Amino acid sequence: MGKGRVTVIDIAKAAGVSKSTVSLVLQASPLVNESTRTKVNAVMRELGYVYNRGAANLRQANARSKIIGIVVNDLTNSFFAELAVGVDTVVQSAGFVQFLSNTSESIDRQREVIASMREHGVSGLIISPARGTEATDLKPLVVAGIPVVLVVRNIPGAKVSSLVSDNHAGTFAAVEHLAALGHSRIAFVGGFPDTAVFDERLSGYRDAMSKTGTGFQDELVVSSAPSRAGGVGALARAMAMPEPPTAAVCFNDAVAFGVCDGLRARRIEPGKDFAVVGFDDVIEAKTTVPALTTISVDPQGIGQRAAQMLLKQINAGKPEAESVVSSVRLIVRESCGAAMNKLGRKMA
Amino acid sequence: MGKGRVTVIDIAKAAGVSKSTVSLVLQASPLVNESTRTKVNAVMRELGYVYNRGAANLRQANARSKIIGIVVNDLTNSFFAELAVGVDTVVQSAGFVQFLSNTSESIDRQREVIASMREHGVSGLIISPARGTEATDLKPLVVAGIPVVLVVRNIPGAKVSSLVSDNHAGTFAAVEHLAALGHSRIAFVGGFPDTAVFDERLSGYRDAMSKTGTGFQDELVVSSAPSRAGGVGALARAMAMPEPPTAAVCFNDAVAFGVCDGLRARRIEPGKDFAVVGFDDVIEAKTTVPALTTISVDPQGIGQRAAQMLLKQINAGKPEAESVVSSVRLIVRESCGAAMNKLGRKMA
Repeated sequence: MGKGRVTVIDIAKAAGVSKSTVSLVLQASPLVNESTRTKVNAVMRELGYVYNRGAANLRQANARSKIIGIVVNDLTNSFFAELAVGVDTVVQSAGFVQFLSNTSESIDRQREVIASMREHGVSGLIISPARGTEATDLKPLVVAGIPVVLVVRNIPGAKVSSLVSDNHAGTFAAVEHLAALGHSRIAFVGGFPDTAVFDERLSGYRDAMSKTGTGFQDELVVSSAPSRAGGVGALARAMAMPEPPTAAVCFNDAVAFGVCDGLRARRIEPGKDFAVVGFDDVIEAKTTVPALTTISVDPQGIGQRAAQMLLKQINAGKPEAESVVSSVRLIVRESCGAAMNKLGRKMA
Repeated sequence: MGKGRVTVIDIAKAAGVSKSTVSLVLQASPLVNESTRTKVNAVMRELGYVYNRGAANLRQANARSKIIGIVVNDLTNSFFAELAVGVDTVVQSAGFVQFLSNTSESIDRQREVIASMREHGVSGLIISPARGTEATDLKPLVVAGIPVVLVVRNIPGAKVSSLVSDNHAGTFAAVEHLAALGHSRIAFVGGFPDTAVFDERLSGYRDAMSKTGTGFQDELVVSSAPSRAGGVGALARAMAMPEPPTAAVCFNDAVAFGVCDGLRARRIEPGKDFAVVGFDDVIEAKTTVPALTTISVDPQGIGQRAAQMLLKQINAGKPEAESVVSSVRLIVRESCGAAMNKLGRKMA
């Protein structure tokens, strides 16, 4: 691409689509199908394209920089750092600066940071809400007409836009894959039970367990904090069962890394003696050993798309809530043992 | 502690120091020695204490929330996420909200976000500068009298406060430890050569290599991006040498994780067949397998301390630059093979 500025035409060419399709993606239009959108976003990222719409008129001399606020519930989870980077790639050349605040799952802190962002004239907010956030907590924003896009966790009854992953489909696919590899004692490991995301991921797991004939067993659900340390603890409890599982569908990648740590500390090799599947596809999933089989939700892509949804509302002048469920896909790497299985068969 | 609010008295009792010592720590007073400060900060963190000084008068009705800006150069490195969490614990109940922006090592973006934070009336800034930032880039802030604390990377000639780790002492200790374990082909792996931090860490490595009699060899310095992927690549180059190293002092923990990944991909067991030492002591260092031997700089503690330095300046009404070099220590875990060595001796 040389050193010149990457244009919509470059993106269109590289993605093999028309220029207007790229424009539609930039406006988060529902006219573009999911796979095209994913492809265009990936190309944008690869070429380092920065969204420029409205940059000229927003950057008038002496005009205050406009800010987009992003409020996340756990900054120490790299998923949210990646999501924020995705938001940044889209908002930055639209004349916006991104200010991020972390709530560490505290609703009180969330109220404070949102109030502060409002006082500072934020143009719109992307929020991954703290545990226990209710629709009434967001009402002041709705009343004030401030565009909001909820990400990751939806809140029933909140009259704002949301962008969540198809959690049910993700864990369903994970169980089906493990069952096809011959596993029947498959645990669901990690996550706090009082969140919508947990419920959705658990229901995908439950439905698939019932469908595969193994049947759903309550005892195979081992919840924990959705962190690496949580995964270590949950795995310990799972392995203490009279009949321990041989595979785990994990609440997220952080938990899955903890499960792998816990297995290795017991001299059990993940991907060989025990199958592990994560959820999120964070950057380390690819480079860790064994590489993590996981459900890809593309955190940077979600950040980009949420930013596009928010900019669309800001540009339209009035917030119109839309709910988007973003599709997910199973990425088979090493931690589930599939590659080894295949190799085994070839060698036999 | 029950459910009540944690007070300075609780902290003093738990840390075994006087109430006024705790107050001095909160004000970042130079009268408190390093080990006391570290202990008090650790207790604050453990008990969930939130700094409350001036909260009452800053939280007057209708007063705008005050913001502290934090500008980091790479949000995808969990070191910076942890540092931001540390800043948060100190600033939040002082009536401040933390707004974070990421520059992804872009000086242009850094200029934009700092300008935006200034426009929004930031009370002070904590900055981990992008590569190539010069003293002149910070001059407008100095002229405007905005308190600034540089963290991680110092900038020669900048008339602002700085809080950096004793990088030289860290890598020096790492080499000494590895030499004591019998290693002589010790590589210095990862990091961009054009940064002050790289120079300081490399000089500690160089001085220790010369002192241990092994001598410094240029070819054993393998630089790379300071990331996990960078570590994977650098390790590949190191292992391709005619006489490959048997140990690596890594630029940071992210690189060290990549080195471990690269070793395992070659069926070389880190901590057994090859010794690895990191730098930073991020959260995963403790839980990963093998647990990472590393130089602890306590990212959350650095965040807390930087916030205290900044609040002190803000409260004083005029910025007075101070330079603090924060001590580091070697944390011996498993990746260096020391535990195994000891075990070996015992068993022999």
